[in-house]
Amino acid sequence: MTSLQLSAMEEMVERFLDAAARGDLAQVSQLLSHAPSLINQTGYSGWTALMLAARNGHYQVVEELLSHGCNKYSVNSSSQTAYDIAKFWGHRHISNLLGRTDDTSQRILPGFDLHQQENYFSRETLDRLSAKRTDTVWLEEKQSDPDTVYLLFSNLSPMVSSPQADANTGVETKLCRFRYEAVKDLLQKPATVLIFLGVEKWRKPSSPSSRSTDGVQEPPAWFAINTDEDAAELLKRCREKNCSFPKTPNRDLLKLNEEEAGVVAQARAVLAWHSRYSFCPTCGSSTKLEEGGYKRSCLNSDCRSLKGVHNTCYPRVDPVVIMLVIHPDGNQCLLGRKKIFPVGMYSCLAGFIEPGEPMEEAVRREVEEESGVKVGPVQYVCCQPWPMPSNLMIGCLAVALSTDIKVDENEIEEARWFSRQQVIDSFRRTRPAFTFPPRQTIAHQLIRHWIGMISNL
Amino acid sequence: MTSLQLSAMEEMVERFLDAAARGDLAQVSQLLSHAPSLINQTGYSGWTALMLAARNGHYQVVEELLSHGCNKYSVNSSSQTAYDIAKFWGHRHISNLLGRTDDTSQRILPGFDLHQQENYFSRETLDRLSAKRTDTVWLEEKQSDPDTVYLLFSNLSPMVSSPQADANTGVETKLCRFRYEAVKDLLQKPATVLIFLGVEKWRKPSSPSSRSTDGVQEPPAWFAINTDEDAAELLKRCREKNCSFPKTPNRDLLKLNEEEAGVVAQARAVLAWHSRYSFCPTCGSSTKLEEGGYKRSCLNSDCRSLKGVHNTCYPRVDPVVIMLVIHPDGNQCLLGRKKIFPVGMYSCLAGFIEPGEPMEEAVRREVEEESGVKVGPVQYVCCQPWPMPSNLMIGCLAVALSTDIKVDENEIEEARWFSRQQVIDSFRRTRPAFTFPPRQTIAHQLIRHWIGMISNL
Repeated sequence: MTSLQLSAMEEMVERFLDAAARGDLAQVSQLLSHAPSLINQTGYSGWTALMLAARNGHYQVVEELLSHGCNKYSVNSSSQTAYDIAKFWGHRHISNLLGRTDDTSQRILPGFDLHQQENYFSRETLDRLSAKRTDTVWLEEKQSDPDTVYLLFSNLSPMVSSPQADANTGVETKLCRFRYEAVKDLLQKPATVLIFLGVEKWRKPSSPSSRSTDGVQEPPAWFAINTDEDAAELLKRCREKNCSFPKTPNRDLLKLNEEEAGVVAQARAVLAWHSRYSFCPTCGSSTKLEEGGYKRSCLNSDCRSLKGVHNTCYPRVDPVVIMLVIHPDGNQCLLGRKKIFPVGMYSCLAGFIEPGEPMEEAVRREVEEESGVKVGPVQYVCCQPWPMPSNLMIGCLAVALSTDIKVDENEIEEARWFSRQQVIDSFRRTRPAFTFPPRQTIAHQLIRHWIGMISNL
Repeated sequence: MTSLQLSAMEEMVERFLDAAARGDLAQVSQLLSHAPSLINQTGYSGWTALMLAARNGHYQVVEELLSHGCNKYSVNSSSQTAYDIAKFWGHRHISNLLGRTDDTSQRILPGFDLHQQENYFSRETLDRLSAKRTDTVWLEEKQSDPDTVYLLFSNLSPMVSSPQADANTGVETKLCRFRYEAVKDLLQKPATVLIFLGVEKWRKPSSPSSRSTDGVQEPPAWFAINTDEDAAELLKRCREKNCSFPKTPNRDLLKLNEEEAGVVAQARAVLAWHSRYSFCPTCGSSTKLEEGGYKRSCLNSDCRSLKGVHNTCYPRVDPVVIMLVIHPDGNQCLLGRKKIFPVGMYSCLAGFIEPGEPMEEAVRREVEEESGVKVGPVQYVCCQPWPMPSNLMIGCLAVALSTDIKVDENEIEEARWFSRQQVIDSFRRTRPAFTFPPRQTIAHQLIRHWIGMISNL
């Protein structure tokens, strides 16, 4: 092509994109009939005609472009599809048209459960941007950025505020958020551990009409700080009411909203690793923190852990199986209780996956060890990060092959079969004969999942 | 009941069990009509009438007992159900009658995949008997037991023998097995690490006819030894042909049979942990090995790791997601290659699960980081322990929401969409244009699973 032809083509692309952005259905159709290759052309920041029509709510143009076979799966320079854009700008009729992921997943993944459970501690509020962890210049800039959010931890508990609530409203705990100026002194202290958590997933979509915008505005970064400064003094830094560092994380960290719980799951698990892994397990030397808090390297230059990649340098995640065992009659489930449980509480059996063990085998071994019951088929349901200190709870349903119970008293105090009706009654009654762990736990969700299952009984 | 009545009842139970064992259908029916409560009574070693009938192949008696509603899920003192017993003694018509677990799991777990993949490294050949790890007396007795099996590791590789094979037969590597006498000197050396692996699952069913048997014969125990003795000298201890310690575990450990691969997965993962975690990560002190090799405790009595239960003391298992990403059209999959791969080889994308991250989110993050492709629904398929050094590979299918590829060159060299037909051709041809990892890998199995899936395309 000559430069003249090139510029004519460029001009046509521009007219086509402009027509899509304005919602000029007639011109979009006309241009496409002349030059079908326009369909997936991109303009500023990688925007296609489909994205522009989706941005501005032009349903008929979107339909027209789809009918000409345009690629609805391409992304712009902010990694957004046309679907993402329609959703962000609230054009639901268009996002519904573009979405149809439910149909797709049913077609591509037969047997896929559309209503997958999102468990507490599971929402990924932040984009972890792990590639930035080695970019020390970027990380330092972000640290002093006025938009950056800091969370303060003392003894692995985050500072939270619990607004006074009247008797009728639930009390929700909120994370206290700090700016750079309020914590920069702590960053200088040698005992401080600083973790880069990521950036907010919120992205300001580059506006296609105002092409003069200078570069993309970056979303705020989040960091977690753990410090050994006096907790009472730390609390004075916050202007919120009723601030505290919760003492019983197993209970108190269950009062956050879903977004903040997801952030705490990440932050606490990484901080807990630093608190127990200050020394190199391979040679016993001290270590230094690297990569935004996701690596500890041995300070002994002769250490084997510095040659090659070794898990000693990276945070630990402990996979745990937790399972609801169903009676062969399909109508009872096996629950156990530990001595430390509150009176009357029963829960699913659970245990750590061992080295060299598939998770289905871990389910069978743990159930037989703890209760004497033999297990056949095992089906994965959902999982949950549990940052006490850094477990990954892998939730399964399992079908029993035997029913006699013989409890290992070192592990649990009691195990019993409960009928579906007993379980349902327990959920419904205000003063049930026995209780289950709270809704924030995967055990609770597995039990609810089971009683909600359509069963041909 | 008087003692006379009691003994009459005992006598009736004995007659009933005897009739079932002999296959005397008439007497079983007659006794049941007189005393229906006989149905689930147990005799010697917890054997029920059903177990005795199953043991001796009396199909009609089994039917009769089932029709009277006997409990087919109870276990004897060896933890065997009637089904297990029928299967062990080869009475297939009876085990089929008693089994029916396939029907059960379909009814109780709708959507359950009956043909769950068993991956390489996944077979649990041994019963780990974790409760025995703290029983030092029992463990010591087992060490010197002449039936005990020892595996010898040097530099984390097991000693294997590779019989000379002619060109037409596949060469299978076998683990070299040792008895106590051949390794007892090694057990005395301070640098030796000894791991209790478990006992063989084989159990000699207590024979119900010969009630004079004195106690149950225990199945052989297995141990793994890692030693830093000279490898060439160690090889001289074995009488097998072509013994060696493989140098490239990623390749050489894939030549075992399924049973031995399962044992090696466990042994190597635990030994690898000892080799890198000799020092306490919490305080840097030396540690001692405990609980049959499944615990390391800090020798510094002031260490925090000794107060409460901490993961620093237990072997590490690193959960990894590995996923086959499917194109929104359902007919292509995303595969990538690393620079270190053999020429032409492509595999599934994979990455470590991070602290506080659900596995489905880890799939989405890793795919977007490595390839720029956005992922929607994620479905767990199967898992695989991978003892290099101690990963748990969690295999998933995932559906893409975008299709443009932008590779992170730090992670992979290339990523491409491959059509189903291209993948099928590659499996079929002797000289394909590109290849996949070997059948022993979960990546291979995920790809095969996808092309085998019934898809309404």
